[in-house]
Amino acid sequence: MAGADIRADMWLTEVITPWDMYMHGATKVLAYRKTQFQEMYIIESGSFGKALMLDGKWQSAQKDEFLYHEGLVHPPMILQGDPKKVLILGGAEGATIREVLRWKNVERVVMVDIDGEVVEACKELLPEMHQGAFDDPRVELIIDDAQKFIETTTEKWDVVLSDLSDPIESGPAFALFTQEHYQQVSQILAEGGFFMLHSGPLFLTELYMHARLANTVKSVFPHVESAWCYATSYGLPLSYIMASKQAFSAMPDPVESDRIIAEKTTGSLRMLDGRSLVGMLQVPLHIRKLVEEETEVYTLKSPPTPFGRGSMQSGD
Amino acid sequence: MAGADIRADMWLTEVITPWDMYMHGATKVLAYRKTQFQEMYIIESGSFGKALMLDGKWQSAQKDEFLYHEGLVHPPMILQGDPKKVLILGGAEGATIREVLRWKNVERVVMVDIDGEVVEACKELLPEMHQGAFDDPRVELIIDDAQKFIETTTEKWDVVLSDLSDPIESGPAFALFTQEHYQQVSQILAEGGFFMLHSGPLFLTELYMHARLANTVKSVFPHVESAWCYATSYGLPLSYIMASKQAFSAMPDPVESDRIIAEKTTGSLRMLDGRSLVGMLQVPLHIRKLVEEETEVYTLKSPPTPFGRGSMQSGD
Amino acid sequence: MAGADIRADMWLTEVITPWDMYMHGATKVLAYRKTQFQEMYIIESGSFGKALMLDGKWQSAQKDEFLYHEGLVHPPMILQGDPKKVLILGGAEGATIREVLRWKNVERVVMVDIDGEVVEACKELLPEMHQGAFDDPRVELIIDDAQKFIETTTEKWDVVLSDLSDPIESGPAFALFTQEHYQQVSQILAEGGFFMLHSGPLFLTELYMHARLANTVKSVFPHVESAWCYATSYGLPLSYIMASKQAFSAMPDPVESDRIIAEKTTGSLRMLDGRSLVGMLQVPLHIRKLVEEETEVYTLKSPPTPFGRGSMQSGD
Amino acid sequence: MAGADIRADMWLTEVITPWDMYMHGATKVLAYRKTQFQEMYIIESGSFGKALMLDGKWQSAQKDEFLYHEGLVHPPMILQGDPKKVLILGGAEGATIREVLRWKNVERVVMVDIDGEVVEACKELLPEMHQGAFDDPRVELIIDDAQKFIETTTEKWDVVLSDLSDPIESGPAFALFTQEHYQQVSQILAEGGFFMLHSGPLFLTELYMHARLANTVKSVFPHVESAWCYATSYGLPLSYIMASKQAFSAMPDPVESDRIIAEKTTGSLRMLDGRSLVGMLQVPLHIRKLVEEETEVYTLKSPPTPFGRGSMQSGD
Repeated sequence: MAGADIRADMWLTEVITPWDMYMHGATKVLAYRKTQFQEMYIIESGSFGKALMLDGKWQSAQKDEFLYHEGLVHPPMILQGDPKKVLILGGAEGATIREVLRWKNVERVVMVDIDGEVVEACKELLPEMHQGAFDDPRVELIIDDAQKFIETTTEKWDVVLSDLSDPIESGPAFALFTQEHYQQVSQILAEGGFFMLHSGPLFLTELYMHARLANTVKSVFPHVESAWCYATSYGLPLSYIMASKQAFSAMPDPVESDRIIAEKTTGSLRMLDGRSLVGMLQVPLHIRKLVEEETEVYTLKSPPTPFGRGSMQSGD
Repeated sequence: MAGADIRADMWLTEVITPWDMYMHGATKVLAYRKTQFQEMYIIESGSFGKALMLDGKWQSAQKDEFLYHEGLVHPPMILQGDPKKVLILGGAEGATIREVLRWKNVERVVMVDIDGEVVEACKELLPEMHQGAFDDPRVELIIDDAQKFIETTTEKWDVVLSDLSDPIESGPAFALFTQEHYQQVSQILAEGGFFMLHSGPLFLTELYMHARLANTVKSVFPHVESAWCYATSYGLPLSYIMASKQAFSAMPDPVESDRIIAEKTTGSLRMLDGRSLVGMLQVPLHIRKLVEEETEVYTLKSPPTPFGRGSMQSGD
Repeated sequence: MAGADIRADMWLTEVITPWDMYMHGATKVLAYRKTQFQEMYIIESGSFGKALMLDGKWQSAQKDEFLYHEGLVHPPMILQGDPKKVLILGGAEGATIREVLRWKNVERVVMVDIDGEVVEACKELLPEMHQGAFDDPRVELIIDDAQKFIETTTEKWDVVLSDLSDPIESGPAFALFTQEHYQQVSQILAEGGFFMLHSGPLFLTELYMHARLANTVKSVFPHVESAWCYATSYGLPLSYIMASKQAFSAMPDPVESDRIIAEKTTGSLRMLDGRSLVGMLQVPLHIRKLVEEETEVYTLKSPPTPFGRGSMQSGD
Repeated sequence: MAGADIRADMWLTEVITPWDMYMHGATKVLAYRKTQFQEMYIIESGSFGKALMLDGKWQSAQKDEFLYHEGLVHPPMILQGDPKKVLILGGAEGATIREVLRWKNVERVVMVDIDGEVVEACKELLPEMHQGAFDDPRVELIIDDAQKFIETTTEKWDVVLSDLSDPIESGPAFALFTQEHYQQVSQILAEGGFFMLHSGPLFLTELYMHARLANTVKSVFPHVESAWCYATSYGLPLSYIMASKQAFSAMPDPVESDRIIAEKTTGSLRMLDGRSLVGMLQVPLHIRKLVEEETEVYTLKSPPTPFGRGSMQSGD
């Protein structure tokens, strides 16, 4: 080879599998915290601007987090059509709130995240991501276990967004990937409401995780579709699961979606429009097949414990 | 962190940018050649089976090359509808031929690759990829400059597939990414023919390359669409450009596509069906915008020279 | 930083500790074997020429193996004064034989290595290291367990050189690091004979290994000194233990050593002379103290099992 | 391989040569500064405790810096016999002062370092290294160019210690590695005084640097010896050059050295005693030969410019 120039002294290294490592050069470490729940770094990366890493997993990067966050928020909002009350489970950096607030008719957004220290660090150090969203009067931030909130809330929600880290054994989000949890989510959805779940990366050897989560959601909701987005800084496509008690099209008319976006949002979406939404919902054939053939359902008795560090990528 | 287990002694390292390195653990090095044109490794990787690396860039891996190769071959074949003559520019490992041969009515496939040593090594060591495709009586393999072939062929082709390494300065494929080249391709296309081009990775900071290539193709063909696929072993989505002199839909009816696949192919596609095809053609909004706003056109006088090692990912 | 140029696609990576990795760029992989006993790579490295790696540990590199091998062989040979019969335990690449054969009065060299496949690969691919030593009529190569040879030989040896991989759990050399073994070595030493043992790296957090081995040898031999050499490609200093039933000076007169070298060898030593020998024997104070304070003795019942992969560096 | 456990998310990576990288896992980044002169990291490393990195080069680590600093300070102090006034050029972390202050008769220590920001960060964050040495009333810290100090001081010094980063092109220490500089040092040495210089790593392919610096010092001082120490966290042995206008033995009597240490110091040296001192001065034969054969002398007109990043290791 002719030689390659590298520029960093410090390399954030994600062990994606025992055979694959992705290294991102950092120019600065802005914060390190070992919280009650997880280990956090906020760095300045050479390629992607500021980035958040939790428990050794790349979460969000300034320059491309719009891909993941627009992909998480807008599809269920568009399909719901006119959401007013939105609940976010997890959501540390506030970028999910930011996207929700683009919807002009939204009246109330509650974000429940268990790790107050991480949220505080993001508030302080990642203004590029939250863009002041935490200060919007429509927003209520609750630092608590999302599970507890769901069990006690008496409100109904038009859209519920699950923006959690992956269910790694030592992570805080464990029970939130089970049938029991999805049943509770189902009960707090308003009429015509939508549930959107981040369901981990689509790494070739880890596709079963998306399939099992999708199958678990399907054991609760009658209408479920897989979706995906690419997020270059992860080195992996990320997956979502969208669910509703009402039927919806897996190929929604792009003209209609564009009309809703134009009318109901402030109009500044970067990645998502009607065509992108259609694309997001056309997960490749082999993944759809895996989902169809999957039989396992995660429950509290049989939760997704085997997902260890290095076997999943998180995104929130 | 709790610690991560890694398994390899030897790590194939791709410097994707000066700030980002992707390392794949190898268990064996099956071949190394420094040919007249490029530096080649064929390895056995821990996660992806056998893999081909050219000039420091990951090209194809046994376990996920079907994503890239199905994505390259079948979209133009489906849109053409009933291709009989197919020309492949580049195509080292033979996996592109393999996919073309799934089409029952194909009568003649010519593959023109400049690097006979790489093709020979692939023939010998990567049977999992070509699956005997080189021996099919419909196939003619020509070791020569693809440009020269195009200038001299008098045949017309239903589908032309450009399955080249990226146009890095020292690479062999340089002139094949210019307006002049695309004009020649246009002239050898049969009535209703389609041209499909691999146009490099969609790395956040390198999107301009796809945009410029797309704009260059648009300077020649009246009907052009961007497409993409994910290929996990690259750590990046890959892009394509599909072009034709006849109009075609960017959202082809999936039922019709599935019918064509069922009727015209042997039916064993893994990633691609009607829905996947629709998904592949819905490149995210910000990329479509970049393409629209692009003004640069690559010509022989002003070729894509700045693409250096580390700035692009190749796939063929 | 201003940026650094790196040159390799393939990096041989030694996990020295879970917190420290040393990566050497390779230009070629010359051989890979999974033998009955170990996993072997012979590579061409960018900095150090050809190199041998066993079970993930860097063993020898063409450009600097003289440091380790001169340091292993000549100190006991000089102190013995006129060795005629030399026994080598281990010694794969033949470089240890090569150094022994520089001694003009040597009449018989036996090398006993358990792994015939590794020896054969070294013979074929590393002529720069053995320099034909295996073909010298004074040399007998025995492919067998060194322990078995020692138990059955009836010969007496002027110098016994233990040139083994580290006693990692899965390695072949396990029992050869115990008191019982050293007692047997003691019994086959000729009058005035010397025993020299490679005793692993002096990595800051692994010094106890040298100390325990030294203490084990001291439980058998009345006269024992630690020695060391640096070997740049390891990233670590390596240690030895020299033992004899006769007293010897830890600061042998350099003039006398130089005289012996000049008279008894072919005179082409590169690293070792009288001054270097004195230097090798002056292990730093804190290591001498550790050895003095050590109480553990390795026996067959209580062998050095805890040394796992990544905790030691081998050299042979 | 059986697999290796790694523990860090963040890896400080030193590109030692374009073919060799040494990576140290960090658990925390304690400070990052881009000063007027250099780029500084202070990290908490997994293996070596706190560590200082300047311009991409590993400088000092808490757990093994005693090896380098005892090796720098005590040899000239012992050979001088009873030093009272000591000048330190460079010396950022204060560990050099700390070692000097172990000498009971020392009356005055001046440390001149150009980079006040680095010194301040070390004072604050590396108390384990300086151990309060900066507060000793015998110490004067001057933040200035060492060259300027030497040109203007009218004092005479018993020992001058050059504890500088390597003369990389962009580094601050450039002119301090030339014949002119050594002449000025010579003029401020007291009768019987000693000069000790850190002269870079002994990496196999970079030995010429030590040789040229040694030859440059020899062009000024009549009595010069090379010395070395190992410092495991560097992955390399480090070299020194000791010089005096008076003759001294390269193999000083260890009993006499031990007597001086016992009498004149507080007695808590860890690595250095009479035997270690002898060992440090017995640089291997091939390095002594390189020094003897060296003809180049660094001058202000012909300074050591070619030493670029990645070609040298610094230590202070």
